[in-house]
Amino acid sequence: MIAGTSDATITFLSDFGLEDAFVGVCHGVIARLAPGVRVIDLTHAIAPGDVAHGATVLVRAVPYLPVACHLAVVDPGVGTDRRGVAVATGRGDVLVGPDNGLLVPAAHELGGVTAAYELRSREHRLEPRSASFHGRDVFAPAAAALASGTAPATLGPPVDALVDLQLPRAVVDPDAGTVAAEVVLVDRFGNLQLSVDRAGLAALGLTVGDHAVVSGPAGERTVALVRTFGELPAGAVGAYVDSDGQVALAVNGGSAAETLGAGRGARITVRPAEVGTPPVEVPHSR
Amino acid sequence: MIAGTSDATITFLSDFGLEDAFVGVCHGVIARLAPGVRVIDLTHAIAPGDVAHGATVLVRAVPYLPVACHLAVVDPGVGTDRRGVAVATGRGDVLVGPDNGLLVPAAHELGGVTAAYELRSREHRLEPRSASFHGRDVFAPAAAALASGTAPATLGPPVDALVDLQLPRAVVDPDAGTVAAEVVLVDRFGNLQLSVDRAGLAALGLTVGDHAVVSGPAGERTVALVRTFGELPAGAVGAYVDSDGQVALAVNGGSAAETLGAGRGARITVRPAEVGTPPVEVPHSR
Amino acid sequence: MIAGTSDATITFLSDFGLEDAFVGVCHGVIARLAPGVRVIDLTHAIAPGDVAHGATVLVRAVPYLPVACHLAVVDPGVGTDRRGVAVATGRGDVLVGPDNGLLVPAAHELGGVTAAYELRSREHRLEPRSASFHGRDVFAPAAAALASGTAPATLGPPVDALVDLQLPRAVVDPDAGTVAAEVVLVDRFGNLQLSVDRAGLAALGLTVGDHAVVSGPAGERTVALVRTFGELPAGAVGAYVDSDGQVALAVNGGSAAETLGAGRGARITVRPAEVGTPPVEVPHSR
Repeated sequence: MIAGTSDATITFLSDFGLEDAFVGVCHGVIARLAPGVRVIDLTHAIAPGDVAHGATVLVRAVPYLPVACHLAVVDPGVGTDRRGVAVATGRGDVLVGPDNGLLVPAAHELGGVTAAYELRSREHRLEPRSASFHGRDVFAPAAAALASGTAPATLGPPVDALVDLQLPRAVVDPDAGTVAAEVVLVDRFGNLQLSVDRAGLAALGLTVGDHAVVSGPAGERTVALVRTFGELPAGAVGAYVDSDGQVALAVNGGSAAETLGAGRGARITVRPAEVGTPPVEVPHSR
Repeated sequence: MIAGTSDATITFLSDFGLEDAFVGVCHGVIARLAPGVRVIDLTHAIAPGDVAHGATVLVRAVPYLPVACHLAVVDPGVGTDRRGVAVATGRGDVLVGPDNGLLVPAAHELGGVTAAYELRSREHRLEPRSASFHGRDVFAPAAAALASGTAPATLGPPVDALVDLQLPRAVVDPDAGTVAAEVVLVDRFGNLQLSVDRAGLAALGLTVGDHAVVSGPAGERTVALVRTFGELPAGAVGAYVDSDGQVALAVNGGSAAETLGAGRGARITVRPAEVGTPPVEVPHSR
Repeated sequence: MIAGTSDATITFLSDFGLEDAFVGVCHGVIARLAPGVRVIDLTHAIAPGDVAHGATVLVRAVPYLPVACHLAVVDPGVGTDRRGVAVATGRGDVLVGPDNGLLVPAAHELGGVTAAYELRSREHRLEPRSASFHGRDVFAPAAAALASGTAPATLGPPVDALVDLQLPRAVVDPDAGTVAAEVVLVDRFGNLQLSVDRAGLAALGLTVGDHAVVSGPAGERTVALVRTFGELPAGAVGAYVDSDGQVALAVNGGSAAETLGAGRGARITVRPAEVGTPPVEVPHSR
């Protein structure tokens, strides 16, 4: 798997934020236990306790990451009887974190689960173990051990079935000519990523250059389908296939989240615009 | 102390924030002067100029960090006649930062001060030295030198007495059956860490499973003492011994800071609830 | 240029923020392509799409950075026909990013542009390349290649003329005795950096210990010229030459941005105060 060399890598995603030293302390624990291992922070801004948010960000990121130990901690059940797990994947990665579904979509993306183990070894955790910070006391030490070449099976007994997590999927209805989707990610720029990919639009016959009617919390709006937001007039809303291969809504030079009054979880329906739809209304230009 | 090898480590805490390039520039200075040294960011979100906040976060973190050069900069007096210092500790660490009390609690945690030196050597700073960014011009270069194996005494003359800093302590009154404490940390999740540890609760006869009356800015409230917040009903306030060994108040799935209207510095009194106290009121459940 | 050794360094500035995994994914791409290269994050909090803001932060930072590949991405035109470029400089650095002016001031600071190349090589990007995340698909791979020792000319054809960017300059009028400047940076502490340096003040005969009249959005105010904000009475506004060598306005223990109601781009005029000006008004003291 991951050689115990100076090239060994841990990637790290959490809902710990950077306001406190939680992330830094986990880095410290890893540096003590596995001094030669590099740690790459993915993000620590997952919404507190939002497992589906963490799972979505992780599954989008892993295709671009090196084969590594992926440490992920979004863990509202810390200290209760939920398990900690190490999950080996077909690509050769190991995912480490709570068994609450967080790791499952990424494991599928990485070639599927080949084995999973419960983190029970007392040798591979900090003692005394706190009840509320398993990132520091359980998961970081496990990741350090794995990145140093420890076999996952050393960490505890095999786990038969992981807790599953279903991320939102769009309902494509070619007969009705609609896609019923959900906003799954809102990025810093206010772009809204939907739970539908390029193929979902294609099933409705929609492609770049067409117009679509988008219905959301703030009503209906006809938008252009563009290749990238930079092609839109300033201030105009458009739809494009984003860098994750998902359909996203954007405002050039603005925030689609603000303009459309939509956040994570908002329901958005997309349908082709009538033939002869006038060009996109442009609120202002520069 | 710290060998001048590729394993040498600097940890870095400040109130610089990540909105500007202050932290990145310090990393750059260290990379120029000590290319093989690794830097671990603890946090840079200390409240601007709040030395006690920085000292509290640092003292909680250091037990989990490798033996290292700990660079800490919360420095409202930068450019005035306050000194910069390097503080060697019993565990073998060296702390670097302003002599304003910031480093003192961490030094005690790390085995006590064994020696301290004023940062006066012109060879180990950037010249010309600015009056307002000693993180870049004085402290980062000193940390780079120390992590590269330079002896602390090389950096300047010995310091007899460091500026002291007393962090808040709780007043436990077993006769009255009360603990008068202060909120010393508020984390991202809104958990309130108090200036009282497990022993302070024990002195009142309080243990997990009991109930306590908590008085704060928003009045009194009876709360359960639990092992971890995940054991609370959703939305309920509880008290637990947190991962630093301190008593903390939390709301499962919510923010104790918001619920109790309390922030850093708020005064909180804890006393055992009357026998026969009804179970914790649960505003809502899921 | 940069040796392809474990000492090779990439510095990284962007407007990606840390709320999403954009930055982490770029780190992952670099780690896959150039495992031995270190990445130093400068800041990722450039105002979204604000090229001049990014250029200003970058030009201030580079003098303190090691000779490196400087990856900078503030790219509102991503996916349109704007070019991506690698810019070699007199000091031996290479800058990588969009050809929208972002890199130009830093290149001048680093000894001037010695060569520039358009990023066109398909071997040195991720395929399929997205239309909206060239940080991941084009710029990070190019930086990884350069930091690994790939010659810039390998990445694509030479570029004759880069898109230029003029950062704001102050107008010093010694006859009228005024400097008309602009706020170019607002830092975490609320300090306002102006587009005028020490020499601009000197041209008006102003030096530390003098008083100046500062006119801004919130009217006029007489302020002291001090060496560092720590010399000001608490709450007082003062001017000083900051750690970038620029004139800045600060409030000791407070925020000049709030006190003066000024942000990035605000116009500020400075002139010497009349002889006999009373000492600075101090709103409150501690």
